Amino acid sequence: MTDTPLESPEATETAFYRAFAATDLAAMARLWLSGEEARCIHPGGDLLAGATAVLESWRQIFAGAAAPTVRHRLLHSTAAAHLSIHLVEERIGRANADVEGLTRVIATNVYRETANGWRMVLHHATLPLEEERKGHLAASRKEATRRLH
Amino acid sequence: MTDTPLESPEATETAFYRAFAATDLAAMARLWLSGEEARCIHPGGDLLAGATAVLESWRQIFAGAAAPTVRHRLLHSTAAAHLSIHLVEERIGRANADVEGLTRVIATNVYRETANGWRMVLHHATLPLEEERKGHLAASRKEATRRLH
Repeated sequence: MTDTPLESPEATETAFYRAFAATDLAAMARLWLSGEEARCIHPGGDLLAGATAVLESWRQIFAGAAAPTVRHRLLHSTAAAHLSIHLVEERIGRANADVEGLTRVIATNVYRETANGWRMVLHHATLPLEEERKGHLAASRKEATRRLH
Repeated sequence: MTDTPLESPEATETAFYRAFAATDLAAMARLWLSGEEARCIHPGGDLLAGATAVLESWRQIFAGAAAPTVRHRLLHSTAAAHLSIHLVEERIGRANADVEGLTRVIATNVYRETANGWRMVLHHATLPLEEERKGHLAASRKEATRRLH
């Protein structure tokens, strides 16, 4: 994969999902902010702090994996000078998976403008539970408070 | 509860966790950005869009619940003009719960500066799985790719 200029949050986001779909760790490393500021939370995962820990997690994910199907759709964005926050719907599954074979993920992606383009500084991804999609809002928070009765 | 000035992201964050701990929907409504920009993802939940949907979810969570124990600790922050992103560790449980009785949650909280102070625009909260705390990084992402073999 040739270097893509990371001239906008959208370009960096496209590069991120392309690197994910290609299980391309070098491409992933190029688009993350280097150093200690990078943060990543995989679905069900704990907070990973610093580019080294973040990229090690992607190395583990990519290790031995066939290139997956990775789709993404921007749901919402909030921006300020040099900082952009995207809420993204991901659909991820094996190569050639049909729509039913894809797992839906909701992610908060944050990009920061640097001298070397827009870099990813945060990826916080979560799996909505099936019951949530059917309209039972906030079931997990409810569970936390249900024990209070 | 009297109105707290929301003069900084930290003040708004304190007000947010105080409103949560007090199951005080009016206090919660005061600190969220009003209108369509507000976004909230509860643990295991889907994306809620707009202040009406967000506050309805908190109404459901608070309904009939005793005031929980809610602790929060700022882990990391990233800021730009008028926008601040906090990564927060929450510990939530019943009133008077000891440390073992608290559930650990990781949240991305985003605040925006408005004419009426810093308002919450995004709360994205997730439960780290127990196995993740023991060092098995990125197990869920791994699960998504494991099926690709």
